[in-house]
This record gives sequence, C-alpha cells and structure tokens, in this order.
Amino acid sequence: MAASPVLTSAHKIAVAGLGLIGGSLARRLAARGRFVIAWNHNDRPYEQARSQGIHCVDTLEELAKGKADVLVLATPLRAMPDVLQTLAPVLTRGTTLTDVGSVKGPVRRQVEQAGLADRYVGAHPMAGSEGSGYEDSDPALLEDALWALCVDEHTDYSRFLTVADMVTQGLGNRLIVLDDATHDRAAALISHMPHVVATALANMLTRSPDRRVASALAAGSWRDMTRVALTDPERTRAMVEENADQVADLLDVLVENLQGMASLLRVQKPETGERRRDFFLQADPFRRYKAALSDQEQISTTDLELDSQEGNWRKDLLDSALRGEQVSAFLTTSRARVLHPPVID
Amino acid sequence: MAASPVLTSAHKIAVAGLGLIGGSLARRLAARGRFVIAWNHNDRPYEQARSQGIHCVDTLEELAKGKADVLVLATPLRAMPDVLQTLAPVLTRGTTLTDVGSVKGPVRRQVEQAGLADRYVGAHPMAGSEGSGYEDSDPALLEDALWALCVDEHTDYSRFLTVADMVTQGLGNRLIVLDDATHDRAAALISHMPHVVATALANMLTRSPDRRVASALAAGSWRDMTRVALTDPERTRAMVEENADQVADLLDVLVENLQGMASLLRVQKPETGERRRDFFLQADPFRRYKAALSDQEQISTTDLELDSQEGNWRKDLLDSALRGEQVSAFLTTSRARVLHPPVID
Repeated sequence: MAASPVLTSAHKIAVAGLGLIGGSLARRLAARGRFVIAWNHNDRPYEQARSQGIHCVDTLEELAKGKADVLVLATPLRAMPDVLQTLAPVLTRGTTLTDVGSVKGPVRRQVEQAGLADRYVGAHPMAGSEGSGYEDSDPALLEDALWALCVDEHTDYSRFLTVADMVTQGLGNRLIVLDDATHDRAAALISHMPHVVATALANMLTRSPDRRVASALAAGSWRDMTRVALTDPERTRAMVEENADQVADLLDVLVENLQGMASLLRVQKPETGERRRDFFLQADPFRRYKAALSDQEQISTTDLELDSQEGNWRKDLLDSALRGEQVSAFLTTSRARVLHPPVID
Repeated sequence: MAASPVLTSAHKIAVAGLGLIGGSLARRLAARGRFVIAWNHNDRPYEQARSQGIHCVDTLEELAKGKADVLVLATPLRAMPDVLQTLAPVLTRGTTLTDVGSVKGPVRRQVEQAGLADRYVGAHPMAGSEGSGYEDSDPALLEDALWALCVDEHTDYSRFLTVADMVTQGLGNRLIVLDDATHDRAAALISHMPHVVATALANMLTRSPDRRVASALAAGSWRDMTRVALTDPERTRAMVEENADQVADLLDVLVENLQGMASLLRVQKPETGERRRDFFLQADPFRRYKAALSDQEQISTTDLELDSQEGNWRKDLLDSALRGEQVSAFLTTSRARVLHPPVID
C-alpha cells in the first residue's frame, strides 16, 4: 500500500526553458511570491529575468540539484531527450517533474525512457500567443488560464497535488484532469488542426493573383481566422508533427465536410438548400454554449469529495472533467473546490 | 459626350434597412452631421433611431421621394427584387443608388432588371460583427473601414463621386475601386469561404464525443477561428449562397491543401518533413505583410491625377487599387488623395 498522500505546496519552482510559455510561467510565479529558479539554453534572457525576480542558473544540472518542489520542462519536444538525459542522474529525488507541452503522450514516453516516470505529472496550460521567446513572455498570458493535468495509473497523488498547487495557488489558475489520449485528441481538435487550417488559408491568400486587393479588403473574419498562422512556422510544424495522427484524422473529417459544402453549393435544388441550412445550423449547440459563457452572472462553486486512496482519486477527477467541472483548489487531499461553467451539449 | 463630372457632396442620405450595417451607417453619418432619413421593414428600431438623430419614414416610397443625394440599400439580397420594384417608379432622378451587400455582381443584375443601372454605384464596407439588427449596430463598427466601390463601363462619374463623398467625408472612411468580378472573388477568399470553414470547425466540435473536454480546453486559437461561426446562420448561408461558385471553387483549393497536409502527416520520411516545412513557410509573405502593417510609423500619402473624361477615371482608379493604394478623399474631379499602405507580395 502506498503512503498516505499529503497536501504539499510548490514553494520552490524550477523552470527549464525561458521561452514564451516558460518565461510567462516563471514571471507569473515570481510575481505571485513563489521562489523561482530558471535555466535557459542560452543566457540572453537572464538579465531581464533576474530583474523580474527570477534566479537564473548556468547549467541544467544546477537546476536539477536545486531541491525545487517542482521542475517544469518548458523546452521544445525535440530537446526533451537531451534535457531528460541530463536531468535523470542528478534530479533531486523529492522534485516532481512536469512540463507545458501541447501534446502529452509523446512527453510521457520520453520521460519513461529516461526512467523518471515515477516523478512525472503531465501538464498543459491552455494559453499562448503568436509571439515567441522571453521577450514576448507576459505573466498576463496565463491570466485566468485553464490547465490540463495528465495522469496515468502510475501517477503519485502527492506529486499530483504539488503540481496542482503550483497551478491553483501559485498561478491562480484552474485545472482539469485528463488521460494523455483524451488530451491529445481534444488538443488536436481545438488547436493543432486549426493551426493547419489557418496556415492553409494564409497560403491561399499568398498564392492568389488577387492577393493585393484581397488583403486590402480583409477585415475581422480574415484577421481572426489567420492570426495563428502568424506563429513561428517551425514551432507550429513541430506542434502539428508531434500530434500527427490525430491532426491527420481530423483534417480528413474537415475535408469531407468542406467537400460536402462545395458540392451543395454547385446544385440549385430545394433539397440542397435545406442541406446547406442544416450545415450552418449544426453549429447551434456551440452558439448556445458561447452565449451561455458570456451571459453567466457567476459560475457556481461546489466541493468535490475525493477518495484519496489507491488511485481512486484519479477516477474521481477524470469523471469530474468529463462532467465539465474545473478545479480551482484542493482544500484537503480528499476535497477539491470545483467550478461549474456552462457545458456544450 | 457625357456632361462634365462635378464634385458633389452627399448631404442628404437615405438608408433603406436599419439592420447591423444599415443602422451603423445611418448612426455614423448622423453623428458626423449628415442629414439621414431611413426606412425599415418594421418600425421597431424607429424610437431609438430617432433619438440618435435619424429621420425615420413610414414607407419605402416616402424614402425614395425624399430627394436624397444617395439612397443606400441595406436590405438583404433576397428582399432586393421587391425593394427595387417599389423604388423604380418613384426614386428621385437625382438620387444615386448604392448598397452595402457582400456580393456585387448579383446586386448589379437586380438593379439592371429594375431599370436603375444608370443611377447605381455598388459599394461594400469591409466591416461587420457576429451581431445582428439595429440593437447591435454601432457607429464605431465603421471606424477606419475600407470600402470597395464597384463600377462598370456604365457608371456615371458624378454619381460615383457622390457615393465616394459619403464614404470619405461623410463617414471618414477609405475606398478602393474594383470591378464586380474582382470584388466577388476577393470577398469569397477573405470572408465568404472562411465563414464556411469556421462553421465546419464549430460543427466538428459540436459532433465530437470529446466536446466537453475540448470546449473547456479551447483557448485563443479556437476562439478566433470560430468567432464568425457565431453569426446568425441564416445570414451566413445567404452570403455564401450569393457567391456560391466562387466559394465552392475556393473550398476545392482548400480541400486539396488540407488533403496534402493530411497525407504528409502520415508518412515519416525526410522529404515529407521538408514538404511539411514548406507548407508552413509558404505563409511567410503574409507574415511579413502583417508585420509591416503593425510596424509602420505612418502611411505615406500622395495625390493621384485622374483623367476625369470618357471613363478614363475608371481605369485610373482600378489601376490604383491593383497597386495597393487606398483613396481617402477626392480633392477635385481629377485629383484624389491616396494612401500607400504596405502590400503583400
């Protein structure tokens, strides 16, 4: 039987990688009073980071030996094997490892290969911008952010609670608990696949003989639909490739839908008119959901009882996420405060 | 030989239809000191409109006989045949007819059928929102808007200049001059087709078994890419159907691009990695263009000499638009002030 879980705080947080997300995270944690140490693969951001209350160290080994409660991997996925190989022999035993990557299955596999699975809790903050690097980082990027914390049957509950403390108390954010596969499917749908679509739209403008006139006429709808195409194309490519199968499957579904609409637009019959209407009405649950989100006066809050033993906490939290609840705090190891925002149905 | 053109002002402006665009237009013109009369198919917005300085009339005939310099059709395309039939016998001879529809070829054909072609200048303000109706109208919707004014070989230059005065002096907006076909192709690319894509994305979320988790995780990229899917689905359907052929052709091109990417994501070979990189890099001219737009300190302004006789003004202005220039004012009938924003190349 495992030791009883404890509700620990993430007082000291180590951040590996001071890019857009790592930088925003480190700055927000420091601004909210946590002790933050950080390392970056070059020292360019150090002067600015130090002036913002972040303790920068010269080597990854130093970061790993720093006895932090949590070490956040905020490095690109392609750098993970090297970073994990460096960390594995020196990481303080009590330090919990987490990350901020936009896919979770591949990160866990690399962590397992490095022999660090028992210390790992996956994490993904749903926040970002088309900027990059520490110079574009901003503590406000994580304002009101929701995190996905990803667990499997080996996840240690005390370590989970430490990462949850960083998210809720450290950052003032909310979280939901998912398994890697559900996260990676959902992230493909609401982020990775749309990034491909935005880029495809921008490519069509770039290649169009009408591009000067069309870009002049472009207003709100075009600006919004192509904003994420402005992201560093190498970063977008890496993100999409890391979730390649899911993105490809979703592109197939989208293609089928768009082909269907193209066909319907070429036929002038009453029944095709009806089917075009159906296409545009099909998004009504999404419209109602968005209206509910913007109309709500306040979100109700309740306490969720958790079975803290033997991994049952995991099922309790996974089920809570599927009901559409979001965790804002852990009050004890067996009680979480949860918000009930509107859900799409 | 036609009469010499004159630089007339649009002092009195009649607006048929007080919806989102007609309402925003009428309110902005009234707020900027023009005399605005308006009619709507029901009188629901009249009380509010009157309090905002708009003179509301009970019938379309009354509006048509009101000796306005310009009458703006801000009614849905499906209402055009009836509206034009009512207007045709009673419209004051000196009143110039224009509209604000998002497709221009179909409107011109209906105006021609009503025998009003000689008084017509097409127009499309590049502005909008996912709202609808007078209650969502807002003079600020047209802040800094660019208009496409659409002309053909029959367009009267004096009438064109009257509509241009409404746009530039009346509204404080800018304009470019296009033929209908170029406008309708460009509008399909930057607005109508993307509306279909946004709706298709929202439909995928609505149908997904992961929709609760996915909608919770949805952040900036998803919010921006689906915003226009929140538009009244009947209005979007009408807009897309009015430009059906162009939209269908563009959907074909997009489908081909997305299929290409889906295939590339399923193959792990060095050369497919290169081709994925090429896909994301292809949008670089768009990224440079957007960076130039946001970096510029100020846009340079020059005067454009126009040959005001025999329709040559038309070619001069069409060429100016193709160079990427935008007209901010007509100083005389043979001189326009033009802005030189960055262009995409």
